[in-house]
Order: sequence, then structure tokens, then C-alpha cells
Amino acid sequence: MKNVHAVVLAGGRGERFWPQSREKRPKQLLALTGGKSMLEETIARVEPLAPSANQWIVTGRGLVAAIKRLGVASAHLVGEPMGRNTAPAIALAAAEIARVDPDGVMIVLPSDHAIKDVPAFRETLRAAVGLARQDYLVTIGIPPDRPETGYGYVERGDILPSSDIPCFAVKSFREKPDRATAERFVKSGYFYWNAGIFVWRAATILRQIERLMPELARGLDDWQRRGGLAAGPKPFAEFYRGVAKVSIDYGVMEKAERVAVIRGDFGWDDLGSWEAIERFHPTDEAGNVAIGEAVAVDSSGTITVCDRGMIAALGVRDLIVVRSGDAVLVCPRSRAQDVRAVLERLRQQRRLKKYL
Amino acid sequence: MKNVHAVVLAGGRGERFWPQSREKRPKQLLALTGGKSMLEETIARVEPLAPSANQWIVTGRGLVAAIKRLGVASAHLVGEPMGRNTAPAIALAAAEIARVDPDGVMIVLPSDHAIKDVPAFRETLRAAVGLARQDYLVTIGIPPDRPETGYGYVERGDILPSSDIPCFAVKSFREKPDRATAERFVKSGYFYWNAGIFVWRAATILRQIERLMPELARGLDDWQRRGGLAAGPKPFAEFYRGVAKVSIDYGVMEKAERVAVIRGDFGWDDLGSWEAIERFHPTDEAGNVAIGEAVAVDSSGTITVCDRGMIAALGVRDLIVVRSGDAVLVCPRSRAQDVRAVLERLRQQRRLKKYL
Repeated sequence: MKNVHAVVLAGGRGERFWPQSREKRPKQLLALTGGKSMLEETIARVEPLAPSANQWIVTGRGLVAAIKRLGVASAHLVGEPMGRNTAPAIALAAAEIARVDPDGVMIVLPSDHAIKDVPAFRETLRAAVGLARQDYLVTIGIPPDRPETGYGYVERGDILPSSDIPCFAVKSFREKPDRATAERFVKSGYFYWNAGIFVWRAATILRQIERLMPELARGLDDWQRRGGLAAGPKPFAEFYRGVAKVSIDYGVMEKAERVAVIRGDFGWDDLGSWEAIERFHPTDEAGNVAIGEAVAVDSSGTITVCDRGMIAALGVRDLIVVRSGDAVLVCPRSRAQDVRAVLERLRQQRRLKKYL
Repeated sequence: MKNVHAVVLAGGRGERFWPQSREKRPKQLLALTGGKSMLEETIARVEPLAPSANQWIVTGRGLVAAIKRLGVASAHLVGEPMGRNTAPAIALAAAEIARVDPDGVMIVLPSDHAIKDVPAFRETLRAAVGLARQDYLVTIGIPPDRPETGYGYVERGDILPSSDIPCFAVKSFREKPDRATAERFVKSGYFYWNAGIFVWRAATILRQIERLMPELARGLDDWQRRGGLAAGPKPFAEFYRGVAKVSIDYGVMEKAERVAVIRGDFGWDDLGSWEAIERFHPTDEAGNVAIGEAVAVDSSGTITVCDRGMIAALGVRDLIVVRSGDAVLVCPRSRAQDVRAVLERLRQQRRLKKYL
């Protein structure tokens, strides 16, 4: 599509996928759904809308080399000097895009989500681009199928007449709710999951940042005046050092005007932990899922992931076993969300840091 | 001691220690108690009684190279052409020993047991040698500390006046009892575990084999007349092919006369499964045992064994995790006895055979 740019945010750490994810190889560089890495699949998904010349990947400086090694054809690979959450990353991409394409529309995408129905995903984004051209800040809302307490929710308001796909004004954003609230949200039909996929004109988001995040806008302005990305790493680091860690949701979306949500019904999955693997790989008759070689004897509900050799599970239930490189992780499925507790422990002991 | 020979039976497979134990590296070649391999420790323990010129190791032909690589100084390393249980292995060693030393006493030792109090062990064997010189077949009986149903038991009869250490005539041998019987055995104080450690004159056991296992005696005789071990592998294989798989317990001990038992109170442990590891390595405050690098978070009663890299256990209880070479095993402690079920599965699938 004309004037459409993709900005893929690839700075996450995805620690819940340790030991396969490591500091130098976070979740977005893993091939968790069976094909290519999450990042490459993200790029491929958006390619028909935003060709590689219009693709931006914003990641941590430490990951630039690893991403280059993937052979991604994206024209712009930005290595942030430090992590500053999503608002600064989006702001800098918006500024750089606006400079070369004042009418540019940008699609902001997390780099580590899975999407099952790619044609429907593209259709939704096309509708969002149409809305964005009318100066809306558009977020894609995922119809929830369970009362998830780990996500933010978007409450829809009035329907907008502007598109084939149902679009709504956003009534409110809600941070991670408690269980009862989440159940109410799901039941009501008025709430979507906030998936972190945004579409807007670069100029529109820049204007909102100026209004709602004046400090960030000032830092960005200074940096742009010094030449922006083209000026190299030193001005970039100076700009970033002075900037607060704020998400675009908190910094802009929750307070902005003309915010719209489009229902995104395309099999979205954020692959939040090892448990999610099950939704992308076949299970045996006892409900065991294996990536790599595995033998399950008198075992059920296991998730085994093995990059070399094999894993044998005997007499265990609902257990996750991951062997990757030099480390093995064992935990019950019910603790899949807590893998970071292991990383905490690794950080505490000097001799264990090499496993991070 | 003069005329004392050690015969170490090293033909076992120790499959319960998979994946550390493999076909080419069975339990007796592993260093499970922290020092050297079980076999080397067995040899070292008996060295003061039977110097290396008098040491025999009888093992499977396929293990000879691996044992040589250990650098064991034993003069005689016999590779059996096939496994035939203990009676043939003991018979052949007895015949070879009797040929060079007609008064020779042999101490028969399993190669994969652990003994904590080595001086007491040697003291017991010295007493046994004294009794063996009086033509007794002596077995060492371990005072049971639990109603184990996996072992055979020896019932003691009248006390024998011949030694410092309590020696008894054997009243009966009992195969693996059921739970209630085992409890009765332990309570009575008259039953010992049969640990497979025997002491006798080579001539005595040969006479009993002739009487109680005439077929084996005949095969042995033929083979000896053809030159025995010195005649090389072909006659050895012909001898063994014609011989039944019988244990010395069943073939001789249960039916023989002049059988004695000496109480062996020296911290014997047959290291029957991964669970036994705990008795030889320190535990942390949550009862976790680790060989190699491990991190246990919110976990208790785990046994982790790791030959390279690390194992992280999160939120698990009473779980065994072993990483060795190209394989990882996970099973509850309560299933440690059933590791063979995994090997069964590996045997069934061609592509998995390499993990055996």
C-alpha cells in the first residue's frame, strides 16, 4: 500500500522462554511456532502492506548483529542504546518516517506474537490504514476468548461508519484487570484485548506525543535537529538517556482523542509462555506435545522442547521440560509464567550468569 | 593375604541409571558416589586382600575396551562372549584360579555396589577367608534396615565357633519376599540381605558345581581341557553357548552343604536407582540433591544429575532430572525403579536405539 510503513518493535526479552531464549537470543528470534523466527514471520506477514524499503525494526543495540544474521531484508534496523519501553521507540520511528514521507502511515507491530489467519490479519490492517488516514489513532482489539488477567483491555464505544470491518471509537483503556473484572469484560462483549498493534499517520502520533508527552517530544526534536539516526550512536544515546521509560499505551493512547479500535479476529496469540506451545503443535493421545525428540512413558500433558538429543519423561503429568543449549528447565505447566524466578536466581550468582 | 583372589563380576547393565548408564557404559563404569567408577572403587577396596596379580574382572566382551581405558591394574580381564548370569562366570574364574593356585580362596564381588566403612568391610572379608579355608561356602549377609522386597534374604542358623566376627550356618535362602514377609524377616533379626558377596576356595565351589550343576561342570571341563581362556575366544564362545543362564545363588548356594553367612555391617548400598544418590551426596535445606550444576527454585526433594551445563527446577517436588550426553530423563522419585520402561520404548523404535 502506498505510504505505508511497518515498525516492528523487537526490543523485548521474552524471558519466559528461557532456556531457549537468552539475553542474546530473545523470544522474537526463536522459531516457536514451527516455521521461521517470530520476527521473520512478523515481517513476512506485513510485507504485502509495507515493502521492505518501508520496514523498520527497532531493537536493542545488543541484538542488531543477531538480527542481521537472520538475513531480514528490512531497510531500517535501529539499535536502541538502552530499553525505554515503547513510546520512545515509536516516537523515533515516527519522526524518521515523517521526515521522508510526510503522509506516511505506520503500522506498529510487536515482533513476538503469532497470528494464525494471515489474510484476515492483512484485511484488518488495510481497514486500519484507511481509518488512520482520517487521523485516527487505531488499535487492533482482539475479541477475548477467556478472562485473561495478564492483558490490558480496550472498551469500545460508538461504531464508526468509515469501514467495511467494524470500527469503534475507544471508550476506555483498562490495565490488567482482576479475575472478576476480566470475567465481566468478556461477558459484556464490549471489551477487546489490547494487542499492541497500532496504526496511525506518523504526523498524527507525533502531534499527540507533543501534546501528551512534551518531554519526549522535546528530546526527540533536539535529536532530529542534530540529524536523528543519521548522526550516529552518540546523539542517539544522549537523546535516550534523557527519556523516561513509558509505554505508548500509558503515554498517549489512554489520554488521546480520536482513538479507534478495530476488531481483529485472526487467531492472535502472544505466546506468553511455554504453555502456549501446545496451541501450535500436535499433541499425542495423552496430551503430550513435543518439539524435538521425546519419549513419554506413562506421562500426560507434558510439553517437551529439545534442541538436540532427546528428552524422556516417565510417569509425569503436566510438566514442561526444555533442553536448549547448555541448560535444562523443568517446571509444572502451572508455573510456566514464573520462569523469570529462575533467571532471578541466575543473576544472583556470578558463576551462573553465563546461562542468562 | 596369601592365596586370596578377587573375582569382580562386572557384566551387569545397570539400566536404571540411564541416561548416564548406556550399553557401552553401564552402571559399574559410572562414578555415582563421587569418586572413581564403581568398578575401580570395588577393586581398590579389595586390593589389600587380593593384590592386582590375583584380581579377576569378568565382564561382557563389549565392555573390555572401556574397562581397559579406565587403567585398572587387574591382571585378568575376561570378556564373556555373552551374558550367562553369575554361575558360569564364577565357575570359569574358579577353574582358572584352581589351575594356578590349587589352594586359592576367591572373593566374589559385584562391581556396582557402594560400601561406606571400608575397614569393616575388609575385616569381614578376612573372617570369611578364614571360614572359606575350612571348606565353607561363605556369603556376606547385610543386616537389613528396611523391609526391602527387591532383595533376596539369607536366614541364619546355628552360630559357628570359628571366628571373631559372628558367623552362622545358613538355614535357608529366600527369594524376593512380599512386603509382609519382608517385614517379618526384618523384625525377626534372623535374616540378612544376600548381597552377592561370596568367599570360598576355588576347589570347594568347583566341587559343588560338579555335584549341583553337572552340565555346567561338563562344559567347563571340556573348555579347560582345550586350554581354557588361553585357547582364545572361539572355544570360550562354544563353551558359553552351551551353558544355561543361572545364578550361583540358585544353581549352588540354595542347595549346597556347609554354607555359612557372616554378618556384614559396613554400610553396604547396592545403589539400586537414582534415588540412592541422595545417600551419598549432601542435600540442601529443601532436601534437593545435585550432582553437577543445578538451580532449584520453590522445589524440594529433587535429585538432579548433570554432566554438562545446568539444570533448573522450578516448582517441582520429588522429581529426578538427569542430563547425560545427548539425553535427558525426568521422572518422579517414586518411579526411579521403572527407568527400564523408557529403555523398552527406545528399543521399539529404530531411530531411538542410539540412545540406549
